[in-house]
Amino acid sequence: MPRVLTLTLNPALDLTVRADGWQPGTVNSGQELHLTAGGKGVNVASFLADWGLNVTATGLLGADNAEAFDSLFRAKPITDAFVRVPGQTRVGVKIVDHAAQETTDINLPGLRATPESLRELHACLDTLHADHDVFVLAGSLPPGVAPDFYAELIAELRGRGKYVALDTSGPALTAALNAEVLPQLVKPNQHELSAALGRELQTQAEILAAARELLERGAELVAVSQGEDGALFVSRTQTVQALPPRVQVVSTVGAGDAMVAGLVSAHLDGLKLTDAARRATSFSVGNITRLGAHLPPRDGLEGYAAQVTVTPL
Amino acid sequence: MPRVLTLTLNPALDLTVRADGWQPGTVNSGQELHLTAGGKGVNVASFLADWGLNVTATGLLGADNAEAFDSLFRAKPITDAFVRVPGQTRVGVKIVDHAAQETTDINLPGLRATPESLRELHACLDTLHADHDVFVLAGSLPPGVAPDFYAELIAELRGRGKYVALDTSGPALTAALNAEVLPQLVKPNQHELSAALGRELQTQAEILAAARELLERGAELVAVSQGEDGALFVSRTQTVQALPPRVQVVSTVGAGDAMVAGLVSAHLDGLKLTDAARRATSFSVGNITRLGAHLPPRDGLEGYAAQVTVTPL
Repeated sequence: MPRVLTLTLNPALDLTVRADGWQPGTVNSGQELHLTAGGKGVNVASFLADWGLNVTATGLLGADNAEAFDSLFRAKPITDAFVRVPGQTRVGVKIVDHAAQETTDINLPGLRATPESLRELHACLDTLHADHDVFVLAGSLPPGVAPDFYAELIAELRGRGKYVALDTSGPALTAALNAEVLPQLVKPNQHELSAALGRELQTQAEILAAARELLERGAELVAVSQGEDGALFVSRTQTVQALPPRVQVVSTVGAGDAMVAGLVSAHLDGLKLTDAARRATSFSVGNITRLGAHLPPRDGLEGYAAQVTVTPL
Repeated sequence: MPRVLTLTLNPALDLTVRADGWQPGTVNSGQELHLTAGGKGVNVASFLADWGLNVTATGLLGADNAEAFDSLFRAKPITDAFVRVPGQTRVGVKIVDHAAQETTDINLPGLRATPESLRELHACLDTLHADHDVFVLAGSLPPGVAPDFYAELIAELRGRGKYVALDTSGPALTAALNAEVLPQLVKPNQHELSAALGRELQTQAEILAAARELLERGAELVAVSQGEDGALFVSRTQTVQALPPRVQVVSTVGAGDAMVAGLVSAHLDGLKLTDAARRATSFSVGNITRLGAHLPPRDGLEGYAAQVTVTPL
């Protein structure tokens, strides 16, 4: 069975506190607390493991608060190849008030990648090459990492014949999409794509033209996610739009990561574009019906896939 | 060397987030995050380990978020004899805003002690009896534990010839102070003592009369802490008041626990009351000059001890 590796340089620990009716500056009682190990590549690994694939997760992880990650990796299971570095993985605190229907976020600074930890990560990737065919590079780059980190890694991985998927934003995406060698799969949302290419993408025609440019320059599949409007999937031979069924949304966190996982699983199964779009959308829908980066069982996902409306454009 | 055991049935994990100028209902950037393993008995163990004593900590600990406790026990070191129970140790979230000089607390519910976990704890205590001479029972009782838990345990431990120190409040203190067998050492603050005895203790004369009552009923030392006014130390033969030197206060959290640790170390060294009062106060002062349940090195503590004003009453 082919093995998938996901890379997360800037994972995050999400701490969600539910405290209905809480007031700042006072002593309050909370109802619930959840600590969730996250970050885009960790989420993708989590979805792929739920789908039944062999998956390895690597990247940089703060040694001081790794417990939630350890538990997740054991539970799924995901092969843990993270490089432990001194310090704490960044934490995002979310205070949720169901009574006031209000959420407060406090995002803490994360680790700074040192040259030493990056050397260790490269050494780790070198040993992982042999056993992995698909590489998912996902999420933001922490301070200390050059914006062209993904761009360089993509060229190296494609040079070794690997299949590479990229899901990032900001300067890292700009650098990767303007490099000579593009990843086979890219999944920006409309705004991320627009920012990376440095021009407004308002109409569907503009988005599709941008996607086709990336295909001409070496990408094989461009998926542009559009939230509840679904996503556009563009390959060299075909373009489809997929519209998800309406479901009871529990949390939209991770919906884009689930789409990447769906597309990776579709690639491994050799699905054609319409079926890949259906699969990817079913992963997204399955994820938003539950809390955390988890998928429903296969029959549930297949039920959602049957309800996805796929329109050739 | 005599071994000390501290018992914490209701430990707590304190999560302090510093976010200057944060606003509820928005996305904010925080500056710092600290996760601290706490609870009165854990703090006492921590101080005693800093002082160089062999100390074992037991009690009930949620298995799902024990990492900060594990790290603390390894770092000090403290012998870890906690019974792991399913679930999460209670968490107290504290959001500190240095700009607005405001603190917001959100306290989460903790574990409920099951009959099974209490049976396991009793079995654990049975095996620990042989190796320990001094028992420190500290902090509140979690839901599921009868208010006379400490009272019964004190009778059993004194029956076996152990030295017992108690630092608790509310119904647990009321039950223990009204039981037939009292602990040798009690350290309530003025309000806790007043609540436990069910009568107002306004004047120093009233407090001392209450302390002497406890001595007549079997206690050997009653310390009544009074915050920045120091503490009263009452034995059968002597009464002293100790006044701490003025220091730069970093955090007063744990000052009472440090006093208990100081008194336990004084007992083990056979100090007379004035020196015990000096030692206990120096522990308190040493603790409030730093963040977390830590003491300065011995020479720092001895410096503070020399500055404590001890007045015989």
